[in-house]
Amino acid sequence: MSPKITVELLRQLRQAMKNSKYIAEPIQAYIVPSGDAHQSEYISPCDCRREFICGFNGSAGIAIVTEQHAAMWTDGRYFLQASQQMDNNWTLMKMGLKETPSQEDWLIGILPENSRVGVDPWIIAADQWKNMFKALAGAGHSLVAVQDNLIDAIWDGRPHRPSTQLITLGLRYTGLTWQDKVTALRAKMSERKISWFVVTALDEIAWLFNLRGSDIEYNPVFFAYAIVGLSTLRLFVDQKRLADPAVREHLQLDTTSQPEMSIQAAPYESVYTELLAICAALGPKDKVWISDKASCALTQVIPKAHRTLIPYTPICLAKAVKNATEIEGMKMAHVSDVHFINLQIPKGMVTEISAADKAEEYRSQQKDFVGLSFPTISSVGPNGAIIHYRPLPETNRTLSLNELYLIDSGAQYMDGTTDVTRTVHFGTPSAFEKECFTSVLKGHIAVSAAVFPNGTKGHLLDSFARAALWDSGLDYLHGTGHGVGCFLNVHEGPCGISYKTFADEPLEAGMIVSDEPGYYEDGSFGIRIENVVLVVPTKTKHNYRNRGSLTFEPLTLVPIQLKMIDTDQLTKRERDWVNEYHRKCREVVGTELERQGRKDGLDWLIRETQPIL
Amino acid sequence: MSPKITVELLRQLRQAMKNSKYIAEPIQAYIVPSGDAHQSEYISPCDCRREFICGFNGSAGIAIVTEQHAAMWTDGRYFLQASQQMDNNWTLMKMGLKETPSQEDWLIGILPENSRVGVDPWIIAADQWKNMFKALAGAGHSLVAVQDNLIDAIWDGRPHRPSTQLITLGLRYTGLTWQDKVTALRAKMSERKISWFVVTALDEIAWLFNLRGSDIEYNPVFFAYAIVGLSTLRLFVDQKRLADPAVREHLQLDTTSQPEMSIQAAPYESVYTELLAICAALGPKDKVWISDKASCALTQVIPKAHRTLIPYTPICLAKAVKNATEIEGMKMAHVSDVHFINLQIPKGMVTEISAADKAEEYRSQQKDFVGLSFPTISSVGPNGAIIHYRPLPETNRTLSLNELYLIDSGAQYMDGTTDVTRTVHFGTPSAFEKECFTSVLKGHIAVSAAVFPNGTKGHLLDSFARAALWDSGLDYLHGTGHGVGCFLNVHEGPCGISYKTFADEPLEAGMIVSDEPGYYEDGSFGIRIENVVLVVPTKTKHNYRNRGSLTFEPLTLVPIQLKMIDTDQLTKRERDWVNEYHRKCREVVGTELERQGRKDGLDWLIRETQPIL
Repeated sequence: MSPKITVELLRQLRQAMKNSKYIAEPIQAYIVPSGDAHQSEYISPCDCRREFICGFNGSAGIAIVTEQHAAMWTDGRYFLQASQQMDNNWTLMKMGLKETPSQEDWLIGILPENSRVGVDPWIIAADQWKNMFKALAGAGHSLVAVQDNLIDAIWDGRPHRPSTQLITLGLRYTGLTWQDKVTALRAKMSERKISWFVVTALDEIAWLFNLRGSDIEYNPVFFAYAIVGLSTLRLFVDQKRLADPAVREHLQLDTTSQPEMSIQAAPYESVYTELLAICAALGPKDKVWISDKASCALTQVIPKAHRTLIPYTPICLAKAVKNATEIEGMKMAHVSDVHFINLQIPKGMVTEISAADKAEEYRSQQKDFVGLSFPTISSVGPNGAIIHYRPLPETNRTLSLNELYLIDSGAQYMDGTTDVTRTVHFGTPSAFEKECFTSVLKGHIAVSAAVFPNGTKGHLLDSFARAALWDSGLDYLHGTGHGVGCFLNVHEGPCGISYKTFADEPLEAGMIVSDEPGYYEDGSFGIRIENVVLVVPTKTKHNYRNRGSLTFEPLTLVPIQLKMIDTDQLTKRERDWVNEYHRKCREVVGTELERQGRKDGLDWLIRETQPIL
Repeated sequence: MSPKITVELLRQLRQAMKNSKYIAEPIQAYIVPSGDAHQSEYISPCDCRREFICGFNGSAGIAIVTEQHAAMWTDGRYFLQASQQMDNNWTLMKMGLKETPSQEDWLIGILPENSRVGVDPWIIAADQWKNMFKALAGAGHSLVAVQDNLIDAIWDGRPHRPSTQLITLGLRYTGLTWQDKVTALRAKMSERKISWFVVTALDEIAWLFNLRGSDIEYNPVFFAYAIVGLSTLRLFVDQKRLADPAVREHLQLDTTSQPEMSIQAAPYESVYTELLAICAALGPKDKVWISDKASCALTQVIPKAHRTLIPYTPICLAKAVKNATEIEGMKMAHVSDVHFINLQIPKGMVTEISAADKAEEYRSQQKDFVGLSFPTISSVGPNGAIIHYRPLPETNRTLSLNELYLIDSGAQYMDGTTDVTRTVHFGTPSAFEKECFTSVLKGHIAVSAAVFPNGTKGHLLDSFARAALWDSGLDYLHGTGHGVGCFLNVHEGPCGISYKTFADEPLEAGMIVSDEPGYYEDGSFGIRIENVVLVVPTKTKHNYRNRGSLTFEPLTLVPIQLKMIDTDQLTKRERDWVNEYHRKCREVVGTELERQGRKDGLDWLIRETQPIL
């Protein structure tokens, strides 16, 4: 990996910072965040501005360029990668280390008096803006919104914003028409006396209108905004996309049977002026909902007295609770997803990359396959200990009889999204590897089989996944689970299972999360066992205060490698869980493999799901 | 229970609200919070102003009186009690119910335009003031600080602020001189570039100076403030208390060997003017620490640019980690504390009250006994389901062979503080009672025996205490544990074990918390098993990232009633825990009972600690 040469780019950016074409008065620093205008986790190439300016292409990082300095902040996952990708014009700021200054402190320390710091208000969230604004103001500097993005200004050959074909999803996939979703949303708005809701998250817009796109790799979303009023409906999207007759029909653009369901379509960029116009006409009691993570640009359009910031929008909450059709779809997707039969024994040269390709190939042959849901983590031996590893030609290892193999992968199908991790050994695992695997499995089961009252937040279950590891002095430094979308983003809120958050919403029947404890021995191996699980009601002997109880039902149905399990470490209850899980794998996936006539797969499945004693 | 007649008091208060003797311009509402000026959990009779004005004497509640209305907000624990203690001049505001307005909303709804709302700034915390101020300002009203407390103004015969004799604690109790504590504190201040620290919490002042008092029942503290500078030391306390030669000697008031350890003593009330003087002389870079829970009055004296609010003060953090002497003292106190021998069989008429008295009598005979650490909860049958029950003559039940008996009690000894709950049956418990007890016990053990990495916050252990209950659809609606002081408050921060908080500090070796899961069957019985436990390092097979592991060592050594345990419900590991715990009770407490010649106690102990299979 050689670093990106940035000397010329930085020169151009510093010129732009003084160019009256972009900004009335020169700025002394320019902040380049890593996100897009929609708080997306994955972003489109046209939005990879921080990567463009400094060369570092990890998922998290903020660059700041001043007249003299250039610095980039990222977290522990990326220290090595960032140091390799950035040239010596850049200072790497290692977040989480005591000696690393915050962006504010660093700026205050080096800026001349009364400096102006610029940022694109579309890619900084309102609360980040506010914090930065306050800190700088306290030291006599000002934060200014630069409407023209200065990176775009110097970026020759910047990719266009994608405008992929839209996919319309009928009732058989969604279970609810978009009109019914809008009606339910408006009921929530009326209940809370809200007149307008500005929808900025791409997956929320896709869910609301039962549309999908492929503007962003792995996430079946499309660039758009929406503004939902109590009797009007605005969709801001590249107008070309609406030429498709199927889309026009789906959105009923040419029929106006119900005026309040008539969509006013407008160009993507016009959301700003339209929102300005709406806000200019607000009555004294009108309230406008917007996510507290929305861009500073849009948030500030709404006058403070009318603005109601919400941590989780009603769409986010509704989307998280899957309906019967979506649950059925998710189950189907998971049955399609069992690609592991191709990996029973690595004959000849199988590498991390070729194994990942093989898994993708298998999935791509399945009905309703659309694409992967995230970049496959396919890792042998020590690479498995790099939690966010992605095989590259220069790191690519060969699967062997001597090392553990960890594969974390998933796909988008028309009916659902998958995400599964298995760790397997093709030879004879060491006692330590088995011990760790079994502790991780105990944690996985402790969550999956947990019974808990309605209203329990997922973060309260996180320690269950760790107890067995903690007992022997082990742990893993990531959360235990995340919400999973239905043919949508593989990571979604508002629920999850992590010690890092307190603000998750309570688990409810119909929510879907991952259960993925792990153990990582640096320089040696990584272990993770991940299923996607559905929150389901369960009957208990008693029912304190009539609250009812919940538990999880695994949707992922891939055998857990028996040779990795030290059965002596398991309790009877845990052994029963494994056997019941494998019985279900056999029953459900076996039937499908039979239907597909995959004899080798079926043999593998039978072998891998033998009961343990 | 008959309500307090408040018509005349309210008339007087409303007059005071217009009386120019107390306030320049009339106020239209007056807020009466329930606390004192030191954020104390328990308060002195002279500070029971909310009780005085409305009659309700629960621990939590806020009263507001306007020209026309009087309302009092409290939480679910106290709905019944408050409705019985208040007359019909008062509206009970049930917090936590959807239809109950917030104090702000209620005020805004009923106040005439441009109203002035008054509050004593000494008994409202700075952040509460800020929130109320903002909400009222948004509706055109103002919040004003009324320096003369209007309740005190109308309170005939208000008790004096106590000024009890101070107890000096030598090294054999504290392990550290107050001078060493001050030195360590100043090192922390220098490290963080802090010039002054305003100490407002009574237990922090008592701990810092190795002094105790008895100004507040159950809490061995005394009314005082302290201001610690880098080279000066101010103590604000009733000057009479410093006449005692032992106190003068302890504080070295008449010797000035080290100027920076020379205490400037000043009257309690003068803290305000002294802090004003200090703040007037602050250099541009001087920073002042004060708790973010401190009174609005003191907080606002410190100019914003110099004020550093802290959630947990360095004294709070240092105090929580007990040193070897304190740990030894706490162990001694717990051995003294085993009063249960008096309760083996209730011969004749034993009531909740007489049993509590008997326990107190036993404790009072022990060496170094000072007083109780909280009001004893002694409850039979259905009274046990009232979590904060305290026996009164009109509710007093008799211990019998047919009902469960729960006793939660503790004491202050010169060397430590205790807090223990046991639930026992003198006849034959029902299968359901045993089932619930055993589930609670499993939860108690799951926490007590938990092994977890250094740096783990206590709230992450809370679910361990509930897993067994959740499995059968049961739960309890309180946290699992609180920090415990050493001959100080029985409830202290900054650590604890509760799903309700996220802001607790990580557990560290030397911290002491309670472990007290329960189950409460309304109208029938209550079960709680509480030990005070010490956080101790433990060896594990592995040691991930060299973090080291912790577990708990029970300090409470009181047998857990065997007949309540359904041993079939226990795992082998849990049975081993019970047997090992009882072995230790026998060994440690048995030796002490032998020394005291308490043959009956010893017999009881041997009987109650038989191994289970």
